[in-house]
Amino acid sequence: MTFTVFGTGAVGAYYGGRLAEHGNTVHFLARSDYKSIKENGLKVSSPRGDFHLKDPLVFESADRVPPSDVLLISLKTTGNKGLKEKLMPLVHEKTALVILQNGLGMEDEFKDWFPKNPILGGMCFICSRRTKPGIIEHLDYGLITLGAMDSKDIPLRNQIGALMDESDIPVTLVDDLNEARWRKLLWNIPYNGLSVVLNSDTKTIMEDQHSRNIIRSLMFEVIEGASACGCSIEESAVEKMLDFTDNMTPYEPSMKLDFSSSRPMEIEYMYDRPLQAASARACTMKGVSLLRDQLYFIQKRMH
Amino acid sequence: MTFTVFGTGAVGAYYGGRLAEHGNTVHFLARSDYKSIKENGLKVSSPRGDFHLKDPLVFESADRVPPSDVLLISLKTTGNKGLKEKLMPLVHEKTALVILQNGLGMEDEFKDWFPKNPILGGMCFICSRRTKPGIIEHLDYGLITLGAMDSKDIPLRNQIGALMDESDIPVTLVDDLNEARWRKLLWNIPYNGLSVVLNSDTKTIMEDQHSRNIIRSLMFEVIEGASACGCSIEESAVEKMLDFTDNMTPYEPSMKLDFSSSRPMEIEYMYDRPLQAASARACTMKGVSLLRDQLYFIQKRMH
Repeated sequence: MTFTVFGTGAVGAYYGGRLAEHGNTVHFLARSDYKSIKENGLKVSSPRGDFHLKDPLVFESADRVPPSDVLLISLKTTGNKGLKEKLMPLVHEKTALVILQNGLGMEDEFKDWFPKNPILGGMCFICSRRTKPGIIEHLDYGLITLGAMDSKDIPLRNQIGALMDESDIPVTLVDDLNEARWRKLLWNIPYNGLSVVLNSDTKTIMEDQHSRNIIRSLMFEVIEGASACGCSIEESAVEKMLDFTDNMTPYEPSMKLDFSSSRPMEIEYMYDRPLQAASARACTMKGVSLLRDQLYFIQKRMH
Repeated sequence: MTFTVFGTGAVGAYYGGRLAEHGNTVHFLARSDYKSIKENGLKVSSPRGDFHLKDPLVFESADRVPPSDVLLISLKTTGNKGLKEKLMPLVHEKTALVILQNGLGMEDEFKDWFPKNPILGGMCFICSRRTKPGIIEHLDYGLITLGAMDSKDIPLRNQIGALMDESDIPVTLVDDLNEARWRKLLWNIPYNGLSVVLNSDTKTIMEDQHSRNIIRSLMFEVIEGASACGCSIEESAVEKMLDFTDNMTPYEPSMKLDFSSSRPMEIEYMYDRPLQAASARACTMKGVSLLRDQLYFIQKRMH
């Protein structure tokens, strides 16, 4: 089974790197980092063990990448507009697409573009960053929660999951991808947005009673939204997730990192899509909507 | 009819000054500005005409102020804690208290403190600022909407209103003070908080579709809160108020000015009290609550 990583950043380079380190054939597509990676390889520092791919299969153009069985989509959702055309040369008859992105509704879009291909989704729970071109610092965690859109692709999901597992990537397999996406949103929606609006990391947010209240009430809204969309999340998940975050190393969510680096934020797939999905089922998520509007206001002023 | 101004700042000095300018006896209580006012008087610049009170009746201590018929309470609500003791020397048997503050529930508190005295409320719609000790810059507007807590005080309300009117202070008399307070909150709740959280003036907020959405949806929540509290505000008031704000000179609401000057913000009376009043009648105002929590978070980090 061969792989192509589309989006050789903090997430894609780490996971693709691990797969390559363990003997899998992995093609990396890189744009700005192409030269560095071609010349110096891909270096990853990690609490699970550092590694250096000295001569990775890196490509500057999709046209030159050999066909592969699995396409790992690890660019940010802010790059999804017009993505279909860029992916065309990489998606062959049986290529499986594994969407390693945050948010909701990405898989449906990929399914529209490539209706005959297997579509899988992976929720990455990882702290990593690209410190320089070709240099990835993996700080903590690393779990991928993996599910298939269509139950006929469960054997494929298992096969990919097994290869990840053999490559020192912890994997949890799930049968209900939509529910897993909402469970991930239960954390992502409150913390990503609020960390930007309040310009704070998780620790600062958790230590203040008022921001903690906001987080809690947003989580309950997300549970309502999920429920409207047919995904039942138990209410006890809220206190569990608060406890969990209390015990995390102080952390800047990905949207906060994007904001601080003046990169566009993933508002559309992390906020608009869940809001639309819930709203289509008569659930408004008022607080989430207010936070979304604050984020768009802030984003407009970043540039 | 004699007056005492408690809180000789941008609002109190302006209105008290106008009353004095037109021949009324007005005592001003001042702390930090006492010396300046004693030495140089009170100077007001205003589109309605500048004036300079060369020798105003200014006092440093409440004990020295002669009894007066009307006590104008024009300090910020952030000073209301422990205020009863400070007011004791000023409140005589028949002294009327006119509460020129923003928020909800102040009158009830003053009524608890001074149950036998007439309590009136005044909603000031004014742009003014104290640029230096004893120097007030009146920029725009100036209307006071005046109402009495108890209908037996309506003649008194009319009498005070007439004196204001004769002193070039535009006055609107209202019979339902509670409703007038909620109508004022319809503007104050959305604009004050959002201008702080988004660090923006009214123009910037109104020009952006997303912040405009927030304002609109907060206004509808305030209407729900008001309605729960027995105050019916027509929904058309929302678009009217948006139009009105579109046409205002770009404006920093008072809470934004407090924030920018690192002064405490009037969160309690402008947010907590309305939230409590509505919540006691099973109306949650979720967006208002979220905004309130953001403000407390921000306030904690100001110091």
